[in-house]
Amino acid sequence: MTNLCCDVLKVLEGKTLVTAESCTGGGIGASLTAIPGSSSVYKGGIISYTNWVKHNLLSVPKAYLEQFGAVSAPVAEAMAFGARENLNADVAVSVTGLAGPSGDEFGNLVGTVFIGYSDREKTFSVAHCFDGDRECVRNQAVRAALELVLQQNR
Amino acid sequence: MTNLCCDVLKVLEGKTLVTAESCTGGGIGASLTAIPGSSSVYKGGIISYTNWVKHNLLSVPKAYLEQFGAVSAPVAEAMAFGARENLNADVAVSVTGLAGPSGDEFGNLVGTVFIGYSDREKTFSVAHCFDGDRECVRNQAVRAALELVLQQNR
Repeated sequence: MTNLCCDVLKVLEGKTLVTAESCTGGGIGASLTAIPGSSSVYKGGIISYTNWVKHNLLSVPKAYLEQFGAVSAPVAEAMAFGARENLNADVAVSVTGLAGPSGDEFGNLVGTVFIGYSDREKTFSVAHCFDGDRECVRNQAVRAALELVLQQNR
Repeated sequence: MTNLCCDVLKVLEGKTLVTAESCTGGGIGASLTAIPGSSSVYKGGIISYTNWVKHNLLSVPKAYLEQFGAVSAPVAEAMAFGARENLNADVAVSVTGLAGPSGDEFGNLVGTVFIGYSDREKTFSVAHCFDGDRECVRNQAVRAALELVLQQNR
């Protein structure tokens, strides 16, 4: 993960990055800030482990949470957009998913993870279905989020 | 760390916990959310890796940041208080410190870490000076923050 984080920080030189994390619970932030000097790019983020935080701190519309559920493309995109706007950054990445051991009431299976991305030109999300246990799903989600930021800024 | 996180979640049953992390960058949140079911206690948090985020999302007064520096008891306390108020929780814990490799312009040495604690009755902070490299300091800070929450709610 260290090399990937270094690549992300390097590719974003001169820009700012923020995170909005649900199922990874701070894992992206913790990985990035393991690198000395990361504060020149990484401003911080919101750990939105509950819908209340998603709505109140990331401005995710309540209608999205009720209609699509927290683990959905619209919510991932709203999280990334809200993080970028509310934390005043150039780039934001978000993660919302089911790390397990149980699915949710919307029929999502364990391993379902949406990664949201937002910069000053676009906001979108990518759906994943990861294998493995809770730790494994969370690690793959952190990696996928960082890879998405890298890919979009190369 | 797993046992400590389980103990924290158990002792806080029926209450809510939030975090405000600077030098640990999301490590407390990531540790807590490694435990299935943590969302019944842990609502989320703010990763405030820059002063902008500390001021704008955690309501840390600019005067504190300028006068005492980000790595100080007043800022740790304001971070914990601000997290608890702004995220509407019963208990908050915060971390601000110097994980290294360099000190800061206020003369703090690497390993200096302030842990802030706030609940509905009190807000205070504890100063630490941890040994070791960046990873080591960050791990000790995560552990000390969780132990402080446990101790205050036993």
